[in-house]
Amino acid sequence: MTGKDQGADLHPIGRSPVVILVRPQLADNIGAVARAMANGGLFHLRLVAPRDGWPQPAAWRNASGAQRLLEALTLHPTVEDAVADLHHVFATCPRPRHIVKPVLTARGAAAELREICHRDLRCGLLFGPERAGLDNDDMACADALIRYPMNPAFTSLNLAQAVMVMAYEWWQTIDETPPRALMTNESPVAPKSQLENFLTHLVDQLDACGFLRNAPKRPGMVRNLRHLFQRGEVTEQELRTLHGVVTELAIGRRQRGRLEKDMQDP
Amino acid sequence: MTGKDQGADLHPIGRSPVVILVRPQLADNIGAVARAMANGGLFHLRLVAPRDGWPQPAAWRNASGAQRLLEALTLHPTVEDAVADLHHVFATCPRPRHIVKPVLTARGAAAELREICHRDLRCGLLFGPERAGLDNDDMACADALIRYPMNPAFTSLNLAQAVMVMAYEWWQTIDETPPRALMTNESPVAPKSQLENFLTHLVDQLDACGFLRNAPKRPGMVRNLRHLFQRGEVTEQELRTLHGVVTELAIGRRQRGRLEKDMQDP
Repeated sequence: MTGKDQGADLHPIGRSPVVILVRPQLADNIGAVARAMANGGLFHLRLVAPRDGWPQPAAWRNASGAQRLLEALTLHPTVEDAVADLHHVFATCPRPRHIVKPVLTARGAAAELREICHRDLRCGLLFGPERAGLDNDDMACADALIRYPMNPAFTSLNLAQAVMVMAYEWWQTIDETPPRALMTNESPVAPKSQLENFLTHLVDQLDACGFLRNAPKRPGMVRNLRHLFQRGEVTEQELRTLHGVVTELAIGRRQRGRLEKDMQDP
Repeated sequence: MTGKDQGADLHPIGRSPVVILVRPQLADNIGAVARAMANGGLFHLRLVAPRDGWPQPAAWRNASGAQRLLEALTLHPTVEDAVADLHHVFATCPRPRHIVKPVLTARGAAAELREICHRDLRCGLLFGPERAGLDNDDMACADALIRYPMNPAFTSLNLAQAVMVMAYEWWQTIDETPPRALMTNESPVAPKSQLENFLTHLVDQLDACGFLRNAPKRPGMVRNLRHLFQRGEVTEQELRTLHGVVTELAIGRRQRGRLEKDMQDP
């Protein structure tokens, strides 16, 4: 029907794969698919012979802000028509049998899709109807199959969830977030010298109050405290708070000490 | 109200993280969460103060075979109660602000969860209510935050989709499917010698019919045919089919040749 990249302006990073829903049954799912696509930076949706016709209000209700994808989607009578302008087509297929075709994981497929799009070729992802999945004729239109590694003991995967996994993996191919980072919106991580200042303050006060009076045990106790505060990155703001906590606790102790002394020396 | 690993028998690979839905609003979503969890090999579900009470029939309708997770889930009045028996708690949080806590990607979190479970410690994943997400008090119960890298221009993530991403990443930490594999359920991939036999057969027939009669172009044409058939792995069954195709085409040509000859020599 059309090969135009409608919605391409929504996507900042060049081409992205077309999602093709083959004979989808539930409009609810079509809306949820649009939402999942937008989550992962996929913007081009095509429908092949939706069971209940098109458009369907339920799809709009379920799209949660991704209605633009629904408005831009194209309708196609057959899979052949829907893939006619594409260069590479991958078919999702939970249980491929008796088909001699490359099988990719979702992650492997996302990497290949990214590479194909970098070469400015157009690619598509086929998803089958909710109940039965893609049939053999549908899969014959594809260059390769995608089988997500998921729990083989429970393979009933919702259509929008299946799209979500591919959309998520697609986004991962461009994201460069490190797997672990410290969030420090308010205060920088303190250098070790500031941590040392605090530990000195703490140990001084613990000496003063007698907490460390057991001389043989003192080195081990101090070391354990150092280990505890070294465990994570501590920010400068947190250190200021900790200094305050120690100071205030010590003041309370000293005041109580004075009070007790006053009571003993009336 | 319990830390027992209900449903552990469903999971073949030791401990798995507990999914904790904090103040979930829609029973539909709770059912869809159970289904997504089963897809990714997560089996322990806890609810903190579900808005509409519990149980809710809509959850059962949406669980598509994962009802067992719903039957085994536990109810908790507070987040503190729901995490009391756990050793590590990660909180999903799309937009962490002003919180000094490690932030993990979904993939990074899955790797850490796997490592923690390997040490036989119990860990949990907090997911906030549909509309507002986790509040600051909820996040204060967590050791680290998880922020999926997803399209920052469209962050409206359905609750069950959010659980799906973590369930999927959890399963990836145990799966060893190579990113690309050839599916050959019926026939083994042919060794190169069999491909060579076919190419010889093909070229012989093309020589016989005159297709390669242009001597200067012949080497390039033959090379191009070789390239074409070398592009993918070809199975033994496919080669048998190709031999048949060439033979049959050649027979047709020879028969037509004989027919034409007969017509010319009546």
